[in-house]
Amino acid sequence: MPSSSKKDWLESTYRKAVERAPERQERFVTTGEMVVEPLYTAEDLAGWDPNRELGYPGEYPFTRGIQPTMYRGRLWTMRQYAGFGTAEESNRRYRYLLENGQTGLSVAFDLPTQIGYDSDHPMAASEVGKVGVAIDSIEDMLILFDGIPLDKVTTSMTINATAAILLAMYIAVGKTQGVPPEKLGGTIQNDILKEYITRGTWIYPPKPSMRLITDIFKYCSEHVPQWNTISISGYHMREAGATAAQEVGFTLANGIAYVQAAIDAGLDVDEFAPRLSFFFACHNNFLEEVAKFRAARRLWARIMKERFEAKNPRSWMLRFHTQTGGATLTAQQPENNIVRTAIQALAAVLGGTQSLHTNSMDEALGLPTEKSVQIALRTQQIIAYESGVADTIDPLAGSYYVEHLTNEIEKAARNYIEIIDSLGGALAAIERGYQQREIQESAYRYQREVEEKKRIIVGVNEFVTREEEKPEILRLDPSIGQRQVERLRRLRETRDSERVACALEKLRRAAEGTENLMPVIIECVEARATLGEISDALRKVWGEHRETVVI
Amino acid sequence: MPSSSKKDWLESTYRKAVERAPERQERFVTTGEMVVEPLYTAEDLAGWDPNRELGYPGEYPFTRGIQPTMYRGRLWTMRQYAGFGTAEESNRRYRYLLENGQTGLSVAFDLPTQIGYDSDHPMAASEVGKVGVAIDSIEDMLILFDGIPLDKVTTSMTINATAAILLAMYIAVGKTQGVPPEKLGGTIQNDILKEYITRGTWIYPPKPSMRLITDIFKYCSEHVPQWNTISISGYHMREAGATAAQEVGFTLANGIAYVQAAIDAGLDVDEFAPRLSFFFACHNNFLEEVAKFRAARRLWARIMKERFEAKNPRSWMLRFHTQTGGATLTAQQPENNIVRTAIQALAAVLGGTQSLHTNSMDEALGLPTEKSVQIALRTQQIIAYESGVADTIDPLAGSYYVEHLTNEIEKAARNYIEIIDSLGGALAAIERGYQQREIQESAYRYQREVEEKKRIIVGVNEFVTREEEKPEILRLDPSIGQRQVERLRRLRETRDSERVACALEKLRRAAEGTENLMPVIIECVEARATLGEISDALRKVWGEHRETVVI
Repeated sequence: MPSSSKKDWLESTYRKAVERAPERQERFVTTGEMVVEPLYTAEDLAGWDPNRELGYPGEYPFTRGIQPTMYRGRLWTMRQYAGFGTAEESNRRYRYLLENGQTGLSVAFDLPTQIGYDSDHPMAASEVGKVGVAIDSIEDMLILFDGIPLDKVTTSMTINATAAILLAMYIAVGKTQGVPPEKLGGTIQNDILKEYITRGTWIYPPKPSMRLITDIFKYCSEHVPQWNTISISGYHMREAGATAAQEVGFTLANGIAYVQAAIDAGLDVDEFAPRLSFFFACHNNFLEEVAKFRAARRLWARIMKERFEAKNPRSWMLRFHTQTGGATLTAQQPENNIVRTAIQALAAVLGGTQSLHTNSMDEALGLPTEKSVQIALRTQQIIAYESGVADTIDPLAGSYYVEHLTNEIEKAARNYIEIIDSLGGALAAIERGYQQREIQESAYRYQREVEEKKRIIVGVNEFVTREEEKPEILRLDPSIGQRQVERLRRLRETRDSERVACALEKLRRAAEGTENLMPVIIECVEARATLGEISDALRKVWGEHRETVVI
Repeated sequence: MPSSSKKDWLESTYRKAVERAPERQERFVTTGEMVVEPLYTAEDLAGWDPNRELGYPGEYPFTRGIQPTMYRGRLWTMRQYAGFGTAEESNRRYRYLLENGQTGLSVAFDLPTQIGYDSDHPMAASEVGKVGVAIDSIEDMLILFDGIPLDKVTTSMTINATAAILLAMYIAVGKTQGVPPEKLGGTIQNDILKEYITRGTWIYPPKPSMRLITDIFKYCSEHVPQWNTISISGYHMREAGATAAQEVGFTLANGIAYVQAAIDAGLDVDEFAPRLSFFFACHNNFLEEVAKFRAARRLWARIMKERFEAKNPRSWMLRFHTQTGGATLTAQQPENNIVRTAIQALAAVLGGTQSLHTNSMDEALGLPTEKSVQIALRTQQIIAYESGVADTIDPLAGSYYVEHLTNEIEKAARNYIEIIDSLGGALAAIERGYQQREIQESAYRYQREVEEKKRIIVGVNEFVTREEEKPEILRLDPSIGQRQVERLRRLRETRDSERVACALEKLRRAAEGTENLMPVIIECVEARATLGEISDALRKVWGEHRETVVI
């Protein structure tokens, strides 16, 4: 007798089978601890209305994608995060990537650049050029983009506390190339809230930090209209151990805080919201990740339309960059990372990402080699041109399991947002350590499950190989710091120090007041003031943030 | 205004977008040339009844999988096709794979073994141990499985014209290990029809070839009840250029021919049908491949229930092995093959395969190294343990696109079967060159599209890299042939030649009559008659097949 319903099947065919031979695990859950049932059927979507929950591509609530033609029109931007050593070396890597078919740039900056210290600052010391490129002044930035026309590429910059300075430098480089600001396209990360939660590259206290962000929103809406003024980032929270639902909930809660801050600063929501962008990770649980992206898109559309009453459909659209999961890579058997990255990249594309970075196999070991970044880029190209998944829009729509998970993740994320609202919003919740604690708990639970082998990581706690040949990794030239210091010395000797002092003084005064800081920062940059000097001018006025210790 | 239907969306939102910016291609099709629309919605499944088209796992028509718990109960068998050189070398590789977590064996035999020549035959010459292991007698077979208990593994053997001999040797090895035939599990390919279509390792004319097959069906149903007596294979047709729908249609048409032959030989369908198994390829078009497996399963269930009126539900189940697509691998940038294989393996698992071989990255270049087979095996393990797709059954069910494609592939495959029926069945159609011609046309069309760059193959006709470092490949010891010849000489000197001659004479007489050949072949093997001698005895009675030339 064939089963007549899911219940019937569970109680007959399925139950008998499990009695004969138990399943591999007593309980199946996603990476994010959502229960996974043996089977999903149309019954799991009872009452689910595709018109309401899916809509159509390019239409509210954008579950199926933000553009009407999606990848049939244009593929996602293949954007590999890269940068190390000096501007010269990074420029060489960018040209290599572009020659290999990369379609957008993504700049990694070193830590001193991210936290506002010049390369010759005692705090910079051993960190110059290490996790990214060292940029001290407009001169480095000119070298970084040498031979790369800024009206032909879009550039993403992972920069937060010092985002305004790097954006100012980018605008200035554009001018020297004859590319006016209104023709520049790209993104600055500029997401300070998640720095307080997990990433750590803050400088100033929250209030002036938020002002810098809203100043950028305002300035760009008028002068750099194609620029994504922020990339509200779940990536680092996910990497620190957040679940998929936490990643969506905490990121969108931060998004709400930025929107509210800009509205409070007197901006109209439809003036800046179309240029907000997002940044998510993509980890291994293939269908949970696909569902996550779809859920995030639907939830953000609902928030912008219902909560903020945005009128422009572009304000409702969640546009996002994806990076495959660095934390999922293993130092053991590095080629296994090619497999993980391929699966993750496929999920990101099935989830409708606008741009994608695929990790290199050796990123768990050090800076990626040319060969390994080429493989990572080829991974995207194979998905784009050989897998066929880019040829129809949102191809997994309707899947009982994927739609069920999409609902569940939206529900869980909405629940986190409600809790954060009840704590007074994202910033207040961060100050009480709420998000930090939630992430720590998820990370701890996951780690314990790995140790107890409840979760298998191939090559790490199972399928371990005895001897490992160490793959070739990229070694940094140890003279980088010295060369940067030397270049700074020459800069300070040759520039017009009067003009520098004057611009910095102007900045100090503007920071004390309320005028938009962007034009003044551009002036400083063009006067060849350094990143450290500009940051220091603001530090003097605003002071520095002290970390909330979560216990 | 939100769209109210797919038609409405196509005529408004979508049309406007395409007018603004045309799509990447004028027309999107799957690898198998099926039209891909921009969007699939619930409207594309209008009238589609999930109870009829899907059913439940472990229930007719098995669209969602043949077992009630699928991979929650037990993962697919990880079965890497391997074998080269002598039995000693291949035995070492099998032990290496088992140590690395492989869960089943799959033996590749060299060409002389496949076409019934001993290693010292003039026709064997340069081919000994080349594309697989050289097996001349039970002595080689004992070495091949040395230290591998046959009641602990299942073994698949890619052997067709000489399948009966290798199965006889396997049974004999089992006996020496104390494992009775009823405890042996595994598969012989034993699919001569697809050899005539494309693979080419036939020996005898169709009629006696079909008799050997039905003799095996009969013998195993009585004495080796857990043995899969045939692996009806679409793989080689697909590799030769068949589309996904042709792969299903031609394979199932061959399946129909075997079932009919066995019924004509007096067997009851439910006596042998539960031990039929299948073998498909998995190529790059991710969702077309998932749909293909689901369509094949549903179509075979319908054929067995409706056409052959099988009563045992096990007779309705299409159980299949999958190998990722060898023809999709490129000699250029071999690491890209890790990505292709990962995507293909994921599709096979989402399609519900029972066992899986993942190709090694260097298979386009030569025999895979230990390192590259380890990566291939790890690919399966990552999908099994890290991707989460094994934790719920048939997770893509309900997807508008996947269900649509499943319908379309079933329909197209059914159409091929009807044409083959109208030509008098698979064998008659092969003799007229029908399947060969269809495959050639598909292959030609595909090749032309690649040359015209209508299809991009990463690293081949786009994203080409100038300099290539050649990866290390495995080189065969050139003395293999010599060593096998030496071993044969010793065998012939030391065995009881009286007993050999007597067994071979008995076989000759049995071949002239109608009795089941399996017991006599086992007797020959145990008397240490060689594979070449046994094949020659049958050649003398039956003659050899001449190829149909397709023009």
